[in-house]
Amino acid sequence: MPPKRVAIQGERGAFSEVAAIQFFGEVEIVECKWFNDAFAAIVSGRADCGVIPIENSQAGSINDTYDLLLQHDLPIIGEVDLPVRQSLLALPGVQLGDIKKIYSHPQALAQCAEFIAKLGAEQIATQDTAGSARLVRDNGWRNAAAIASARAGEIYGLNLLAEGIQTNPDNRTRMVVLDPQASISSPPQAGVQYKTSIVFVTPNVPGSLYHCLGAFATRGVNLIKIESRPYRPKTWDYVFYTDFDGHISGDNIRAALDELHTRARFVKVLGSYPRAKLL
Amino acid sequence: MPPKRVAIQGERGAFSEVAAIQFFGEVEIVECKWFNDAFAAIVSGRADCGVIPIENSQAGSINDTYDLLLQHDLPIIGEVDLPVRQSLLALPGVQLGDIKKIYSHPQALAQCAEFIAKLGAEQIATQDTAGSARLVRDNGWRNAAAIASARAGEIYGLNLLAEGIQTNPDNRTRMVVLDPQASISSPPQAGVQYKTSIVFVTPNVPGSLYHCLGAFATRGVNLIKIESRPYRPKTWDYVFYTDFDGHISGDNIRAALDELHTRARFVKVLGSYPRAKLL
Repeated sequence: MPPKRVAIQGERGAFSEVAAIQFFGEVEIVECKWFNDAFAAIVSGRADCGVIPIENSQAGSINDTYDLLLQHDLPIIGEVDLPVRQSLLALPGVQLGDIKKIYSHPQALAQCAEFIAKLGAEQIATQDTAGSARLVRDNGWRNAAAIASARAGEIYGLNLLAEGIQTNPDNRTRMVVLDPQASISSPPQAGVQYKTSIVFVTPNVPGSLYHCLGAFATRGVNLIKIESRPYRPKTWDYVFYTDFDGHISGDNIRAALDELHTRARFVKVLGSYPRAKLL
Repeated sequence: MPPKRVAIQGERGAFSEVAAIQFFGEVEIVECKWFNDAFAAIVSGRADCGVIPIENSQAGSINDTYDLLLQHDLPIIGEVDLPVRQSLLALPGVQLGDIKKIYSHPQALAQCAEFIAKLGAEQIATQDTAGSARLVRDNGWRNAAAIASARAGEIYGLNLLAEGIQTNPDNRTRMVVLDPQASISSPPQAGVQYKTSIVFVTPNVPGSLYHCLGAFATRGVNLIKIESRPYRPKTWDYVFYTDFDGHISGDNIRAALDELHTRARFVKVLGSYPRAKLL
């Protein structure tokens, strides 16, 4: 079987590729410039599936991804909880003291702000982390380095001048795996711990969230994550992103969702999938 | 009375200064490089108070600010809900077609990614938006522009080549105003709509959030925002950031908080303050 064609935002060597390899093994990466290009690639069939970041331990939920999950019907079939270790990459022979310019994605530059400030190098923002590694390689720059994954260094033949240079040593990004062929209601595998991600909208009246959560609490369903956000189409409603333990086919989850449908204005199940192991 | 000395992360001309002026009128800005420097400036008395971003409509909650609010006892006395309109600033006489390089903070570059991609300019990341405007002015660059507030353009004598260039036209940042002299329990003013921000920690057992929210729901207290986050000191507990309508001195709020104290592991009131008007 040929390797899956996996859409990611960014280029080969991006952290999304690291996550895709971890989830699928060998993959063929479909490089996409923006998140919505990655969703379009999956919908059009140019990619078999996608690996998209949804939450970062420091920056929090990635609202663009949630917006796109609401707009499309692309079931989440899995997740990867990836430690984000940023590396400083330069051409072989280049020393740390030679570095006058650092290229990377704005988010990665922000994550490494303290390291960069100490080094006193100029920061140049690029479209993505791996692309900045390619840039340094293609131009043969010996006074510049890229901030990207160690894997980007391997791909582009760059050395690791420094590793783990992000300010927060425990920086992690949770990625979701999307598969248009999957069914939200496909049965669970035995012995696997599942979680389910949903989005629901409540009217902005006192107690409405409480009554919605009652559907889960009274059945002993454990919430893993909840986050409110103003709901754009109706300014005074609220949308909640919620993850809980269990598979959608479980009796208590099914009953809870049935009850939730009677209390919320809108409910969408994004997927039931095996919980990621912490790496 | 001399103007308040207000600590902000960034330099004069930053969006935090725009918010500070909106809240206080005339202010003396205490420029701080990092968020924790701004908190330190308030605690040490080098500043009378602070204006700190806590939430962005696209990027979500600013976890660093929540972490610092947990670590310090600096009451929130107000909020500003600021539309973030990014401007492209250049020296007088410079045209859009002259721009080969764009300087700004990584977050601002990310917010304007589509505009920059169309222009095809090189992006150079800096410590803050207003500082990039100063850089363009100080160096007399005629092939470069900064992305910052229109106010930064005024301060540094730069022209607005383009306005509202962020990808999301409705990009907003909510700032909180911190005052070490204020008391969490100071009485409310008549005729003002208050909100209260709290943080609480629950054990990770099914239904614990539901039971905590019951303290509010059964008293008709309206939740405005809720967000969960893994609680670092105890990996399997959860911390919830919550805002609700009302002042802490109200009978129903006091009773709700009393009940919450019996159900949560930890409760901290960050402040009761007038709700911001949408601008």
